[in-house]
Amino acid sequence: MTPPISESLKKYSVSIIGASGYSGAELTRLLLHHPLVELHELYAFSQVGNRVSDLYPALGSDKVYKQYCGETESDIYFLALPHGEALQLVPSLVQAGKVVIDLSGDFRLKNQDEHKEFYNQVKSPEAVMTYGMPELFRDEIVRGKTISNPGCYASSIIFGVAPLFLGTEGSINVRAINCTSTSGISGAGRSSKIELSFSEMSENIRAYKAGVHQHIPEIMQALGTSATNPSFDFMFTPMIGSLVRGIYSILNVQLETPVEKAQVIELYQNFYTNAPFVRVRDTMTEVKHVVYTNFCDVHIARVTGSGSLLIVTALDNLLKGAAGQAVQNMNLMLALDERTGLI
Amino acid sequence: MTPPISESLKKYSVSIIGASGYSGAELTRLLLHHPLVELHELYAFSQVGNRVSDLYPALGSDKVYKQYCGETESDIYFLALPHGEALQLVPSLVQAGKVVIDLSGDFRLKNQDEHKEFYNQVKSPEAVMTYGMPELFRDEIVRGKTISNPGCYASSIIFGVAPLFLGTEGSINVRAINCTSTSGISGAGRSSKIELSFSEMSENIRAYKAGVHQHIPEIMQALGTSATNPSFDFMFTPMIGSLVRGIYSILNVQLETPVEKAQVIELYQNFYTNAPFVRVRDTMTEVKHVVYTNFCDVHIARVTGSGSLLIVTALDNLLKGAAGQAVQNMNLMLALDERTGLI
Amino acid sequence: MTPPISESLKKYSVSIIGASGYSGAELTRLLLHHPLVELHELYAFSQVGNRVSDLYPALGSDKVYKQYCGETESDIYFLALPHGEALQLVPSLVQAGKVVIDLSGDFRLKNQDEHKEFYNQVKSPEAVMTYGMPELFRDEIVRGKTISNPGCYASSIIFGVAPLFLGTEGSINVRAINCTSTSGISGAGRSSKIELSFSEMSENIRAYKAGVHQHIPEIMQALGTSATNPSFDFMFTPMIGSLVRGIYSILNVQLETPVEKAQVIELYQNFYTNAPFVRVRDTMTEVKHVVYTNFCDVHIARVTGSGSLLIVTALDNLLKGAAGQAVQNMNLMLALDERTGLI
Amino acid sequence: MTPPISESLKKYSVSIIGASGYSGAELTRLLLHHPLVELHELYAFSQVGNRVSDLYPALGSDKVYKQYCGETESDIYFLALPHGEALQLVPSLVQAGKVVIDLSGDFRLKNQDEHKEFYNQVKSPEAVMTYGMPELFRDEIVRGKTISNPGCYASSIIFGVAPLFLGTEGSINVRAINCTSTSGISGAGRSSKIELSFSEMSENIRAYKAGVHQHIPEIMQALGTSATNPSFDFMFTPMIGSLVRGIYSILNVQLETPVEKAQVIELYQNFYTNAPFVRVRDTMTEVKHVVYTNFCDVHIARVTGSGSLLIVTALDNLLKGAAGQAVQNMNLMLALDERTGLI
Repeated sequence: MTPPISESLKKYSVSIIGASGYSGAELTRLLLHHPLVELHELYAFSQVGNRVSDLYPALGSDKVYKQYCGETESDIYFLALPHGEALQLVPSLVQAGKVVIDLSGDFRLKNQDEHKEFYNQVKSPEAVMTYGMPELFRDEIVRGKTISNPGCYASSIIFGVAPLFLGTEGSINVRAINCTSTSGISGAGRSSKIELSFSEMSENIRAYKAGVHQHIPEIMQALGTSATNPSFDFMFTPMIGSLVRGIYSILNVQLETPVEKAQVIELYQNFYTNAPFVRVRDTMTEVKHVVYTNFCDVHIARVTGSGSLLIVTALDNLLKGAAGQAVQNMNLMLALDERTGLI
Repeated sequence: MTPPISESLKKYSVSIIGASGYSGAELTRLLLHHPLVELHELYAFSQVGNRVSDLYPALGSDKVYKQYCGETESDIYFLALPHGEALQLVPSLVQAGKVVIDLSGDFRLKNQDEHKEFYNQVKSPEAVMTYGMPELFRDEIVRGKTISNPGCYASSIIFGVAPLFLGTEGSINVRAINCTSTSGISGAGRSSKIELSFSEMSENIRAYKAGVHQHIPEIMQALGTSATNPSFDFMFTPMIGSLVRGIYSILNVQLETPVEKAQVIELYQNFYTNAPFVRVRDTMTEVKHVVYTNFCDVHIARVTGSGSLLIVTALDNLLKGAAGQAVQNMNLMLALDERTGLI
Repeated sequence: MTPPISESLKKYSVSIIGASGYSGAELTRLLLHHPLVELHELYAFSQVGNRVSDLYPALGSDKVYKQYCGETESDIYFLALPHGEALQLVPSLVQAGKVVIDLSGDFRLKNQDEHKEFYNQVKSPEAVMTYGMPELFRDEIVRGKTISNPGCYASSIIFGVAPLFLGTEGSINVRAINCTSTSGISGAGRSSKIELSFSEMSENIRAYKAGVHQHIPEIMQALGTSATNPSFDFMFTPMIGSLVRGIYSILNVQLETPVEKAQVIELYQNFYTNAPFVRVRDTMTEVKHVVYTNFCDVHIARVTGSGSLLIVTALDNLLKGAAGQAVQNMNLMLALDERTGLI
Repeated sequence: MTPPISESLKKYSVSIIGASGYSGAELTRLLLHHPLVELHELYAFSQVGNRVSDLYPALGSDKVYKQYCGETESDIYFLALPHGEALQLVPSLVQAGKVVIDLSGDFRLKNQDEHKEFYNQVKSPEAVMTYGMPELFRDEIVRGKTISNPGCYASSIIFGVAPLFLGTEGSINVRAINCTSTSGISGAGRSSKIELSFSEMSENIRAYKAGVHQHIPEIMQALGTSATNPSFDFMFTPMIGSLVRGIYSILNVQLETPVEKAQVIELYQNFYTNAPFVRVRDTMTEVKHVVYTNFCDVHIARVTGSGSLLIVTALDNLLKGAAGQAVQNMNLMLALDERTGLI
């Protein structure tokens, strides 16, 4: 719940670069109502001069999109740009001492070769920030000043298996993970592609980038291994379905040795015990349970005697998979309750 | 924006009777996060013993639904029951001095014959409360203690034409209104009817109750006339389409004498000048502009030389058409900013 | 039902110019399975070299789209081009003695001024073909060789009111018609506009071109009057909703003098007595009742004592509103049962 | 294409028992237009006395649903009943020498224990019919008189992996298959459950019966092994999404030894070379490519060096997954082209 605060409290000035896409719009919505920040400027290259209310009347704001020309008056900058663009803008913001939260993939991967392979772009070794997944890396985030916000698929998958990797001291060993995820179409951004038109996607499902999606190295890195030299087999098949928001991931995990279901549930509950936004649920999760929220729901659906686990996760790709998690990261950096402005 | 408040502030105790339907769930969501109320009990006949998180995991609450047995410990009671049931429960709440906001049609109509005709139920002459439409009847609401919350279609239609009736001193005379409204299927409630199943309603549209919908007398009453003896021709055709939330109303209005478009726009802007939730927009409104908000958007689409107006309105049937407006009414009765907890 | 035919029967050669849009694809599907035609060439400017199975795998055809360069080897040519393009191509096809069925608006309007106003294009007085609406103009179509196929909205509206104009000998006089129609998004064609993307249109409704849609003069002409000098008031508000196919029209008709409901029903039943594809139904029609069929359903929902009628119609915009009606026209010109290949 | 036939040809009399559900309605549609059968009676327990046009106006038929009381006048009987009911009715039809095609699971499983486990019902050892999957068991079907029509998920999965099991002579060995399938909601039948209502399922996804679905033993049996004593690991997670029709299956297959992608493609192409309804496609398949058709599309999306295959299939659950495949089976038994009446 929004904590009661004194009116006289100083608010942080926040600006968004890349504010007119879907993630930018969700950031705008959250930050407009966040009790401790003041939304300063909205930068959006293709919409300069238009008002928020022209593009997103639901947001109820008449702010005008501006061209970003290197301004640094705000305390905090969120970047919600197409991959590749933040790489250019971040250094000067960092140099100016700003808090920076980047929602693109530009600063996620430590391994330059993997970045080159999956993003088709060369970047310098320094272009890495703290990976902003509070449930796994809260301490680093609290101490951090620049955050690379996780990918939407990556979040939905990592939350589903992280306890197996990070919550045990080697007592559980994962041999393979096979994941299929269905994403809402907003994940493709505010796009005019024919294949994302209503007439094409209504009542449709389409897989794409199976085994080659750019979130694969990000997932492996977060789990303590790498796509180049993985410690377990990982297969990932993303799909888009006829929904706007949400990611639904089905994770089949093969362990080296069987475990009891009760043990798995306890492991997950312990791992997420202080994580208000990841819920270990005892009934099947659904997309409808999490859209328009910052929750990621995790359900241990099946544990077999042969060491096979079925884990199902759901989150809102624009919130816990993007803007919501970004605000959660900001809250932590500002030493606020991480839920501030999020529920 | 949520106004900063002191932690020490006393909060009002609020309970919901009929909390497990869709309007009840929206009330639950809004009241859980309202900074000045404490959600006390959730009563729901068919769900006694279940938790909110079983039915509506998105709400993030573990409160348990209870059986209502005449309790009166809360300061404020919202009733979100099927038509007819509130009639029995309200008198004792009123006698106990409670603030009551009823979302059903039970207390809307002053004319008993019309109530009998449209709700197929006899009620006493006293069973009428203040009609809770803040944009039209703010003063009465502020002074009131019992509120009958407007119907969803009624809201979407009244907001579209009220300035023509109540904003002029007889200078504009309406001869006829022809309205078609498309509603989201959540308007039918949490229902298991085959004709509301996904397989039947996906990519479908269906009109129903044309000319006989129970919101007709409510609309006429709010506009200062009656269904029995109307001062203008009124035809209303409701439809459901393949969307969950939202009402989109197309209002064709015939005036006795032509007016200028600029005059109509000015009339509407003046009428709603102090109404933060009704927006007179200069471009075409859409359902997407208002869902998950408490806004009702109104667009004057066309004014012809022969005195014909085309007005298009959009609102979220569960918010401005139900729970949102109910909270707005509560805010006014509590002398709060009417936007508290709503945006 | 498809009539049994001898294998030895000669088949007509048919080609489609503009085969890769949604209407073109439906024509392709119907003509591939029509027992008396052979689908010769598919011309499609932007898809030259691609196969049908690349764009529309459901059609099960490997034919290759070609560039149209004035060929005239087929007996029959369907044109399904953007407005304005058929005007250039038709004259040489006519001169070569071909049967031509044009699905655009280019040859519908007799009044050049109205064509100029609504299509923003000048055309010659000769650029008018037989209006291909079998239920109204069967005799002309049977005798014709060039057909201008009706618009989708126009069809859904004309079928709903034609008996009032053409089925009585002046005994019924229409004073005004107020129509709102909701169309499937496929009506906008195979388009990459952002405002037609899934993320924008899912669970959305949007009105557009209210009172200025180009089908208005077409409707007026078919009903025996004109947009320029109309014999009755006509207001038309088109909308798109979150469905791919279908048009649902709500027609409010004001008569000069009241009529009995039974009389109206009899009038409609008589008018459509030999029309297998227009069904006068005694229960409310729905989009789902007609999609993927060539039916137009018409329901007389309400007849009031003051001479007001409510008529609801539904059809599939790509079939009875485009390709299906076009094949029905072809059947009539070839002296076949008009249902051949259509059900 | 419908083969031209002589008008004088005798038609087979066909009746449907259980005609009012979604599969029954699709059977009705197909058989009404099949050139070589005459649809005799439609039996439907809950709809006795109603017309087809009341429930399914799109079918364009005024036939009346009747109570089934043991009639045997037709040559062919399709049964589309809830699981368990056909077990009672089939014996007398068989005894009367009728051709029987049962769409339920009652006669699919040879293993009585598995039937008991997955259908919670005891059946006799004789209650097994020829498994009606033409692409695998054409010869048996051609010679058969009673057919058990495959399940929808089972079809979508078997078509995706059958060549690996039945198309090689032991050269390929499957170690594990991991499958997630998303089904259209029509797969749950014409149902009034709240959890299948539009308001619950629009923009939603929900997994269910993971690892315990009744199609698992059916799949294993068709692939030459059993659920009780399987020759490979099999994990199956079904889901429903926000679409009415279609099944989309993602099949991850682990082989004992790696193979080349070209070899897999050749294997599949050879296996389905005479199967007009299973298409091995070289680009990603989508639900939209197959709905309203009898096609099952199969795409080999990925073959890794470690012997892992990713195969994606799509079909229409009501057609190739039910009524379409049933008519295909009938065609084969009648020695017709299997495509008759299907495209």
